[in-house]
Amino acid sequence: MSGKMLMLILDGIGDRSVEELDGKTPLEAAETPHLDSFAEEGQNGLMDTIAPGIRPGSDTGHLSLLGYDPYEVYSGRGPFEAAGIGMELAPDDVAFRCNFATLEDGKVVDRRAGRIKEDTEELAEAIRDIDIGVDFEFEKAVEHRCVLVLKGEGLGGDVTDVDPHEIDTEFHEAAPMVDSEENRRTAELLNEFVEKTADVLSDHPVNRKREGDGKLPANVILPRGGGKVPDMDDLDSKHGLDAGAVSGIPLVRGVCALAGMDILEVEEATGGLDTDPDSIIEAVVGSIKDHDLMMVNIKGCDLSGHDGLPGQKVDFIEKLDSSVAKLKELEDVYIAITGDHSTPVTIQDHSGDPLPLTIWGEDVRVDDIDEFNERACSKGAINRIKGGDLLNILKDLADLTEKFGA
Amino acid sequence: MSGKMLMLILDGIGDRSVEELDGKTPLEAAETPHLDSFAEEGQNGLMDTIAPGIRPGSDTGHLSLLGYDPYEVYSGRGPFEAAGIGMELAPDDVAFRCNFATLEDGKVVDRRAGRIKEDTEELAEAIRDIDIGVDFEFEKAVEHRCVLVLKGEGLGGDVTDVDPHEIDTEFHEAAPMVDSEENRRTAELLNEFVEKTADVLSDHPVNRKREGDGKLPANVILPRGGGKVPDMDDLDSKHGLDAGAVSGIPLVRGVCALAGMDILEVEEATGGLDTDPDSIIEAVVGSIKDHDLMMVNIKGCDLSGHDGLPGQKVDFIEKLDSSVAKLKELEDVYIAITGDHSTPVTIQDHSGDPLPLTIWGEDVRVDDIDEFNERACSKGAINRIKGGDLLNILKDLADLTEKFGA
Repeated sequence: MSGKMLMLILDGIGDRSVEELDGKTPLEAAETPHLDSFAEEGQNGLMDTIAPGIRPGSDTGHLSLLGYDPYEVYSGRGPFEAAGIGMELAPDDVAFRCNFATLEDGKVVDRRAGRIKEDTEELAEAIRDIDIGVDFEFEKAVEHRCVLVLKGEGLGGDVTDVDPHEIDTEFHEAAPMVDSEENRRTAELLNEFVEKTADVLSDHPVNRKREGDGKLPANVILPRGGGKVPDMDDLDSKHGLDAGAVSGIPLVRGVCALAGMDILEVEEATGGLDTDPDSIIEAVVGSIKDHDLMMVNIKGCDLSGHDGLPGQKVDFIEKLDSSVAKLKELEDVYIAITGDHSTPVTIQDHSGDPLPLTIWGEDVRVDDIDEFNERACSKGAINRIKGGDLLNILKDLADLTEKFGA
Repeated sequence: MSGKMLMLILDGIGDRSVEELDGKTPLEAAETPHLDSFAEEGQNGLMDTIAPGIRPGSDTGHLSLLGYDPYEVYSGRGPFEAAGIGMELAPDDVAFRCNFATLEDGKVVDRRAGRIKEDTEELAEAIRDIDIGVDFEFEKAVEHRCVLVLKGEGLGGDVTDVDPHEIDTEFHEAAPMVDSEENRRTAELLNEFVEKTADVLSDHPVNRKREGDGKLPANVILPRGGGKVPDMDDLDSKHGLDAGAVSGIPLVRGVCALAGMDILEVEEATGGLDTDPDSIIEAVVGSIKDHDLMMVNIKGCDLSGHDGLPGQKVDFIEKLDSSVAKLKELEDVYIAITGDHSTPVTIQDHSGDPLPLTIWGEDVRVDDIDEFNERACSKGAINRIKGGDLLNILKDLADLTEKFGA
């Protein structure tokens, strides 16, 4: 009888030997009785999300875990951010992450328009009336963030950022990164769009009010991270899977959306250290009956890794640990517990260090590992695999795969 | 903070279970307290230089360790030998290894012209005056060895050897291995070149003197191992690395030169059993400050393997061992200790048996292995990797790599 599959992705969980923790990794230093019991009852190993030594982004890492080759499908962050806020995308579209920003005498004085929070939908409405000769969609996202999607054929995805990534300087003119008619056209359209956002925003009532209140106006849109929407077969057509996802991070939600997964709304999945693993796990347990595969990304460890805070990372891991116990209530589910990449506190960025991996479920070949961490798992029965193989391994365990050959 | 990287390549170190050593490998039988201490303080595993079961050459093995796919870039030994003696090469050139040889009544009677050592530069000068209608360069190498490079466009690299590889037979006419205009042209040029070397050498004063002294004349050049110079991106453009190399073997120096590495001159690196590991390691310790990556090849084990001498291999390993201690003086360096291939005394040739690998440096996930050898390392935290991944792993550890994605 076929089962279900769950990938529990603990964002940035992997680490290195940390001096303040007596040479342990945060995961080794943390008290994790529940994660350890999955390791004890399951089989264990190491996983290189993309390949040994390759530092995955959150986008490329999750693509690999879902069985896509990121070197084939990854085209830049824009399309995944756009999909992450629920925009409908077609394979020929080109998407950009953007900021509402503040321009003064032709110079960018604040890349986030005083971290504007309110009335961005009104500004977005004005922007949607701009005419640049091709269809586009424009949506606000959280705070000063927004997304632009240029629609239609004949567009290229490889153009440089308009956002100068620093202040007190002019914004940049977009230019082709690779010279082609499509990229030249996109760069021209983008430059026209940016000029026209400055026109329609400069005298906008929202900005007059902001200035009256002593706030910086949001008087220009600065696009960056452009990319052509990849032509990805979704998990249903590729693997016959009805899949769902929970994540507090728009970028990961975007990857999952472009893979054709249902995105579950879990308000308590904040993507910050205040995220609530209990609520996330509860939502997953409640919704797995409707899906063949659930992917759950819990962010927290990654933030402590970026900030170089081993103690905070240990604390978050311990907070996580008690939540996962509830997953044992699930029947006929094969669970993989791992991460999307390491974020060592010694590096303060993603790294290519391999991740611990536990696969738990009825009839797996249980090994003699009884702790969930980098060193213990390295001695387990799985040995060392690539993230791109994980979905196939779970499908096989869950009897959801076809024989190749006769 | 980013660190530096060192690959210590112990040429041919890997072996198999040897009866004379009570079933141990030479590396297991040898007393190696210093290599073992790196294993104890580092993480360990097995490495397939190219892929499991594939027998690497010294050229293809080092290419793989430097992150090049030898199936893509390897075109034959000629170009690497040419680069190894310092010849300047362009991507369209075709290079051949050659021997000074002795011809008598149209037959090759000695492929090495009585192992000629002296006056080969005078012979080379005469050869450089030959006219075959295209530019070429010709250089003597060690003893009877020399190198021919045909320059310019429209040449092919796939032609058969002129060297018959046996004596008392006529030398062979070069012919295309794959039929193409370029290969036919190269074969014709090569045959004309060989005929003309016989013309200019037969009456050369150096040979008249040799014959007077009862020595065999060097009266023909026999090319072999032809190949088109590969169009390799160097390590700087591919990885942003300033890299250096030490090796006593011209072939390995050639691989490193074509990868854009500085080739350090260390006179004591002889490439034979008389090589001096102490001087080599000292040179490396002194020069690593000027490089991001140093590759050091120490030859010795390989020779004992080819000769089927386990005791000699054990002795050389013990000689090596004391030299490596000095590497511990280095700070902020990640060191990989491994080989380019196994050369089992039972096979007397390179083999595809995986190699022991230790990676040592601050913050690596130290495992519980405390010996550097084939069997001990197989239980370590690295598990089993491919040689083509090693540079990426070191770059990641040393924080010299970029994230792929966001």
